[in-house]
Amino acid sequence: MLSFASDYTEGAHPKLLQHLMERNLVTLPGYGLDEDTEAARAKICAACGRDDLQICFLTGGTQTNRIAVSSMLRSYEGVVCADTGHIAVHESGAIEHSGHKVLALPGAEGKLAAETLAQYMETWLADETQEHMVRPGMVYISHPTEYGTLYTKAELTALHDACRKYGLPLYMDGARLGYGLMSPASDMTLRDICELTDLFYIGGTKVGALCGEALVFTRGNMPPHFMAIIKQQGALLAKTRVVSQQFDALFTDGLYWDISRHAIDMAMQLKAMFTAKGYPLFIDSPTNQQFFILTPQQLSRLKQDVVFSVWQPLPDGRTAVRFVTSWATTAQQLAALKRLL
Amino acid sequence: MLSFASDYTEGAHPKLLQHLMERNLVTLPGYGLDEDTEAARAKICAACGRDDLQICFLTGGTQTNRIAVSSMLRSYEGVVCADTGHIAVHESGAIEHSGHKVLALPGAEGKLAAETLAQYMETWLADETQEHMVRPGMVYISHPTEYGTLYTKAELTALHDACRKYGLPLYMDGARLGYGLMSPASDMTLRDICELTDLFYIGGTKVGALCGEALVFTRGNMPPHFMAIIKQQGALLAKTRVVSQQFDALFTDGLYWDISRHAIDMAMQLKAMFTAKGYPLFIDSPTNQQFFILTPQQLSRLKQDVVFSVWQPLPDGRTAVRFVTSWATTAQQLAALKRLL
Amino acid sequence: MLSFASDYTEGAHPKLLQHLMERNLVTLPGYGLDEDTEAARAKICAACGRDDLQICFLTGGTQTNRIAVSSMLRSYEGVVCADTGHIAVHESGAIEHSGHKVLALPGAEGKLAAETLAQYMETWLADETQEHMVRPGMVYISHPTEYGTLYTKAELTALHDACRKYGLPLYMDGARLGYGLMSPASDMTLRDICELTDLFYIGGTKVGALCGEALVFTRGNMPPHFMAIIKQQGALLAKTRVVSQQFDALFTDGLYWDISRHAIDMAMQLKAMFTAKGYPLFIDSPTNQQFFILTPQQLSRLKQDVVFSVWQPLPDGRTAVRFVTSWATTAQQLAALKRLL
Amino acid sequence: MLSFASDYTEGAHPKLLQHLMERNLVTLPGYGLDEDTEAARAKICAACGRDDLQICFLTGGTQTNRIAVSSMLRSYEGVVCADTGHIAVHESGAIEHSGHKVLALPGAEGKLAAETLAQYMETWLADETQEHMVRPGMVYISHPTEYGTLYTKAELTALHDACRKYGLPLYMDGARLGYGLMSPASDMTLRDICELTDLFYIGGTKVGALCGEALVFTRGNMPPHFMAIIKQQGALLAKTRVVSQQFDALFTDGLYWDISRHAIDMAMQLKAMFTAKGYPLFIDSPTNQQFFILTPQQLSRLKQDVVFSVWQPLPDGRTAVRFVTSWATTAQQLAALKRLL
Repeated sequence: MLSFASDYTEGAHPKLLQHLMERNLVTLPGYGLDEDTEAARAKICAACGRDDLQICFLTGGTQTNRIAVSSMLRSYEGVVCADTGHIAVHESGAIEHSGHKVLALPGAEGKLAAETLAQYMETWLADETQEHMVRPGMVYISHPTEYGTLYTKAELTALHDACRKYGLPLYMDGARLGYGLMSPASDMTLRDICELTDLFYIGGTKVGALCGEALVFTRGNMPPHFMAIIKQQGALLAKTRVVSQQFDALFTDGLYWDISRHAIDMAMQLKAMFTAKGYPLFIDSPTNQQFFILTPQQLSRLKQDVVFSVWQPLPDGRTAVRFVTSWATTAQQLAALKRLL
Repeated sequence: MLSFASDYTEGAHPKLLQHLMERNLVTLPGYGLDEDTEAARAKICAACGRDDLQICFLTGGTQTNRIAVSSMLRSYEGVVCADTGHIAVHESGAIEHSGHKVLALPGAEGKLAAETLAQYMETWLADETQEHMVRPGMVYISHPTEYGTLYTKAELTALHDACRKYGLPLYMDGARLGYGLMSPASDMTLRDICELTDLFYIGGTKVGALCGEALVFTRGNMPPHFMAIIKQQGALLAKTRVVSQQFDALFTDGLYWDISRHAIDMAMQLKAMFTAKGYPLFIDSPTNQQFFILTPQQLSRLKQDVVFSVWQPLPDGRTAVRFVTSWATTAQQLAALKRLL
Repeated sequence: MLSFASDYTEGAHPKLLQHLMERNLVTLPGYGLDEDTEAARAKICAACGRDDLQICFLTGGTQTNRIAVSSMLRSYEGVVCADTGHIAVHESGAIEHSGHKVLALPGAEGKLAAETLAQYMETWLADETQEHMVRPGMVYISHPTEYGTLYTKAELTALHDACRKYGLPLYMDGARLGYGLMSPASDMTLRDICELTDLFYIGGTKVGALCGEALVFTRGNMPPHFMAIIKQQGALLAKTRVVSQQFDALFTDGLYWDISRHAIDMAMQLKAMFTAKGYPLFIDSPTNQQFFILTPQQLSRLKQDVVFSVWQPLPDGRTAVRFVTSWATTAQQLAALKRLL
Repeated sequence: MLSFASDYTEGAHPKLLQHLMERNLVTLPGYGLDEDTEAARAKICAACGRDDLQICFLTGGTQTNRIAVSSMLRSYEGVVCADTGHIAVHESGAIEHSGHKVLALPGAEGKLAAETLAQYMETWLADETQEHMVRPGMVYISHPTEYGTLYTKAELTALHDACRKYGLPLYMDGARLGYGLMSPASDMTLRDICELTDLFYIGGTKVGALCGEALVFTRGNMPPHFMAIIKQQGALLAKTRVVSQQFDALFTDGLYWDISRHAIDMAMQLKAMFTAKGYPLFIDSPTNQQFFILTPQQLSRLKQDVVFSVWQPLPDGRTAVRFVTSWATTAQQLAALKRLL
């Protein structure tokens, strides 16, 4: 059975396992106070062209979003995002469980426009019943979005400027950040992300790691006693090394970019295969998630041999589906898929 | 520098890494719905001599305690434990952060006695202002305790009976469960633990894994939609395989017991070395944590060459210290330590 | 200055103050365990034609909503409501602060239609990623709604049936319940409300009391230890009598209905005055909140002599405004207003 | 049946009801933004000899404690108090439900000594595992305490100084503050309380009001958007006037002090009656709560005609009991009690 179900269906890129093995017997203190965690931080800083980033390592995306958001907000504040944002839809209410409302605004292909934010804030500022409402306290975006789309540098700059104008920290969920930056459609670097956001995370789980995300604070704005905050939410690993050593490997010799570039290459070939066969695009995604529209016949036929996600049923009876590539996708798999189209 | 600082200062037992590697390229669905997670569950069930256990895999002890406790309690209930219990002292208030009070009762060498619990419950039942107080809703114990001590089967049975009498689920924190069961002082098996508790966890992080704990519900009492509960608290791994595959290896060919037995052997030799040299015991622990009393001179001399924990200062100026062994402790390390005593 | 700002701008109906005074020196136990609270419960039961209702007295609407919702939901559940629902918009995120998501569906003039709910639930049930989403756990409606509108008995029955079908308790926010039931447009009685909801509250604050709401459980479904739940959220009054004695007076000799009928009469006269002068209705409300559309000139002129709420600016430059009547509204005030129109 | 059960068993001092009645028809905006609330604030400021206090009105003690504590703490902080503190024992876990640990230290007759606090803080500061523990974030005391005892000015100054040294805001629960300040044993004024605490509340419910407490911030340290915080916790009254008008009356012509002085006079006579008859004191309280020790015979005899609180059983079979006086206690009641002793 071929699988294009997601980018988390295999283990880790072999170089990560190899690095875990090489460092396995080194004795290190726990809880992220070790030299290997420091080394991983240094490599990420280098990749960002910055030496003043505050970085901590967590195990998964929902955990990272929950901790990032709840640690930045006061009790009466909520987080603004596009209505398709992962935190608004697919995290089992983790943000609300931490006490905060998700203020979902209309998005376009997964993106939140600076104008949408500005219009919302102007309405908010004009409302005399503010104290009876949830105060917007920060902005969440995902890049790439849940639809595989990307912000341009101009769009992100506009959003950054609007956030600054209204005093809202801007947080980027980078679960698939590598795929975003290595897309041919991208006009941004990791350094740009550092400049244009207040905090963001570099996704590991979906970009070749067994588990792990690197949460980055870009303005010296990590909340005090962040270690206690992480511990309190059950997210502090005794052996933080299991995550940080993987990030060390990911940011050694550009592996993170190689993995990302490979998945993008595979995704572009995959898209070309579908469009060549006449399958319409549901969304024209420039990253490793590809969305197509299938007829009921195509859907049932492909399902027999391939695992992929049913994204949503369409009014006309057809179905939007998602195919995802990763570091583990091979040319052989693409060739096999091609024969089935 | 020799280290006896803790049992989480090295990576994983090599067989775990090897198993991760062997299964690395297998394509598996995410979020614990995969065959490898099922296989790990089956092996744990077999080790428990039970086929009806509900098991989920989490990444760390505080996370497991927080989720276990908060998912079993109603909003107005608290969790009873010994005053030295890990949840009462060393988890940055994770239980309170989830909304529940830790009801700490006087313990003896880390243990909560059935009589202490019964006395507390009788006082509670006689109190006419119950609705103004926190209702005891479950009992937490650790085994081995934070002092390395063990419940006897008789003690645990008495506690189990008291819990049943008062309608309180009994939860065991087994962060170091293997070391407890492999201690020569133990008169219990894993099957006994299943019989005598309502839920417990089998510690992985401190018993040879990179990360991971197996939370076991013994009475078909896993709360409904537990997956959503885990996700909501940020604890659901996309690649649950990273934990479950390690548990598969731990429960293959008795590795979990071998690791534990080795650490216990090392700990007993270590204790013998200290006592032979006349160092007094702070507590006579039968497991892999050993506690001694050092004079200021001994403390400063040993610190130069060995890493260990300062447990607590004593009123007479001496210091209680802790030495811990693990799967990674070697005869060479013990010999080196011996020369320093 | 004339005021039609809201129905909470004066104190209490004089009969309530009189009853407080008459009972002032009676010695009563605290925390709602007193005979006066029991008497108020009995009178509400009688008004409902039921003898099996569970009733508790709280001080305000947001408090009641927060406690009702959070005590009925499991941690991973959210509350479904119309997008204009008070809990979704104007309670400073009280529901989210208690850990639960408000699942807002499109409403029509403040109402949630049974079909809207059914369609949402069918989509939910068909979704394979349920465990990653917030589970709908109950339904919230307000009656009258925030727009003054009313459910017909047929509409409420349909909603009740849909809730039953999908296993969702139906909760009615009755902050202005009296005005709803006394409206000429109403085809329901308090007994109907009891039959068609699982819990609801009878608003006091906006219907003649100084403070207080009566939360009613209609199916013997009050959560256990509800007194502790209320206490824990800071809502248990030592002198619950201050609320329950007011409800005793409200439900003596039909005062609650008299107050409501008076306000409705005043509101209908007020509406007639506006429409006679050619002011368009923003919404045709059959209750004590009346909504009109004013030109900028009308708005600025009226503002000089009358206090009322600016509801929302309209795209054409005009403004929707709200005028509210209450037990304290007099014929003189209406006459004075008429002269200003 | 005579009652000395508590100071909340009657309604309000008649002058409060009278003031409510006089202001009943005045039209006022809601949510504490009205002139009557402002007037009450001004009178409290005057009574404190300060013009820079920030004051808000809430309905009860647990609510006030919950909001005061949770709004002052960061998520990882706890509140230090004596082990007999109301928040530690008798608030159904309201503080923990808001996410924070109550750090209970050994008290003496209900009081927390500055030395106890200092010793705790020094131990805390010396602990290298701080980030794994709950960080002390503020100090809670009650005055009078739950045992009726009082801090001297010297004791409170020492506590204030210790709090300042360790950076901990000092919060005083003044549920019975009037009785404390009017006790012959008191050497403090309301102005002293303002100087020596960072926030405190002036109890109304137990000092003659139907409901209500005045929370006072003494250093311009009210958290921003406090109105939203109150609303979010369900504590914002639409008709805040019901509380603030009562406080206006309490702080007009020294009524608060008259009420308190009367209750203290009654309490001193009551104590004298008991001691004259040879009943031993359980605690020598200088305020309106009086504690005696009764034999089983005395207990069962008195219970037939008098309502009072059983405080705690004593090891020797006798029982500690509590008698409480209030504004409503009369000389006739004392005389009747005397005949029963």
